Amino acid sequence: MSTRNIKLTVAYDGTHYHGFQEQRGTGLPTVQEALEAVLSQLAQKPVQVIGAGRTDAGVHALGQVVNFRCDPWRIPVERTPLAMNPLLPADISVLKAEPVPQDFHARFSAIAKTYRYSIYHHRIMSPLQRLYCHHEPRRLDTGAMKQAAQYLLGTHDFKSFQAQGTPVRDTVRTIYRAEVVEEGPLIHIYVRGNGFLYNMVRIIAGTLLKAGLGKIKPEEMEHIIASKNRVLAGVTVPPRGLCLMEVEYSK
Amino acid sequence: MSTRNIKLTVAYDGTHYHGFQEQRGTGLPTVQEALEAVLSQLAQKPVQVIGAGRTDAGVHALGQVVNFRCDPWRIPVERTPLAMNPLLPADISVLKAEPVPQDFHARFSAIAKTYRYSIYHHRIMSPLQRLYCHHEPRRLDTGAMKQAAQYLLGTHDFKSFQAQGTPVRDTVRTIYRAEVVEEGPLIHIYVRGNGFLYNMVRIIAGTLLKAGLGKIKPEEMEHIIASKNRVLAGVTVPPRGLCLMEVEYSK
Repeated sequence: MSTRNIKLTVAYDGTHYHGFQEQRGTGLPTVQEALEAVLSQLAQKPVQVIGAGRTDAGVHALGQVVNFRCDPWRIPVERTPLAMNPLLPADISVLKAEPVPQDFHARFSAIAKTYRYSIYHHRIMSPLQRLYCHHEPRRLDTGAMKQAAQYLLGTHDFKSFQAQGTPVRDTVRTIYRAEVVEEGPLIHIYVRGNGFLYNMVRIIAGTLLKAGLGKIKPEEMEHIIASKNRVLAGVTVPPRGLCLMEVEYSK
Repeated sequence: MSTRNIKLTVAYDGTHYHGFQEQRGTGLPTVQEALEAVLSQLAQKPVQVIGAGRTDAGVHALGQVVNFRCDPWRIPVERTPLAMNPLLPADISVLKAEPVPQDFHARFSAIAKTYRYSIYHHRIMSPLQRLYCHHEPRRLDTGAMKQAAQYLLGTHDFKSFQAQGTPVRDTVRTIYRAEVVEEGPLIHIYVRGNGFLYNMVRIIAGTLLKAGLGKIKPEEMEHIIASKNRVLAGVTVPPRGLCLMEVEYSK
């Protein structure tokens, strides 16, 4: 029997993790390590996981996808979440497990990802939202944010929306959805695309906030994108508002 | 000028507190202490607060009310939240401050309180909901829960819904609202009444869950109330699902 390749859908509260996968060798706990520890315990040998999105420290996920290969894997695939969850810390849950073909790779096989950036728009921060939202107490024109978001749609060179100093050559990405959804004092920015540059969603959120605050006009988005100049876009807003919602694969 | 009496509306994440007001001298931090420390710092003398609801360890609030008297209080009343919030920990926020008459007492002047008990109804707990919801993975008949809730309305002796061994003689309370609201995987139980016995809302939630699980029929609520027997009601569900939403006063 060949090695099994298993896909897991994972949710986590990133507050206490140094990201999904450690970026700079700090020794702080990562979500990947927590998953590997439990899988290795169940398999009674070392198991490595591949994550679709290398979420940063403090970033959350409701639909991260990972895969791992293990031979043998004695737990029925569909029961894997039930075996893993009691062994995982309460801030990580495996939502689903599915068998996938040998060549499935959580990162390289992904065709689209959806992120949500959440802003708590109120004069005073709600303590119950503080871990999962960025706080913006100033007056915001959400109409302007919605208008500005439209300029992101389509295929563009998003170099202006990449953390400076990132060694990525091809900065062209396609954005399929860029939507600003209001829900009481919450403003959710949903961005779905075929791929994202480092810090791209947080810089997009910072730029849409600039439009909401009236510091740029929505139509200036066109120029900001065309300039390929990081300095013209908004600040990188804090990680706590960001959540990886979904990773899609071709059937 | 006479001493000022100031009413504050306060929100907090109760996860890391031993309740609003310490109950059994454990020395763990309380919300009351955190508020008093900041008010005393601002007033440069000891200030004591009176809370409307003595929420238990782990219980949250979005609309707790407290009052404090201080002479002089040099901060304009309406700006008091802006002065307090930067000095408070991030899990406590003052939402509003209002001057009130000398005889206003946050607890004794209250005419109604609203609590919400939140249940995450899904096979697997969401890590982002774990601090603010009770997890119920089993199949629930929410129609039965809604029906059962109706029996709570009106004036009853709620002795069956009081923690055993509580030295309260008068266990008659009036419930104005008992509503089960579904919101995706969340089930919120709202209870508004003129007063609540110790653990009453958590026992109500535990009893409605029994109805949802089919362990009691909704119409058995009538007998459970009439019996004045704590043993017939459901278990006291965990504090994390409970939130004090609002405290009302006569105008």
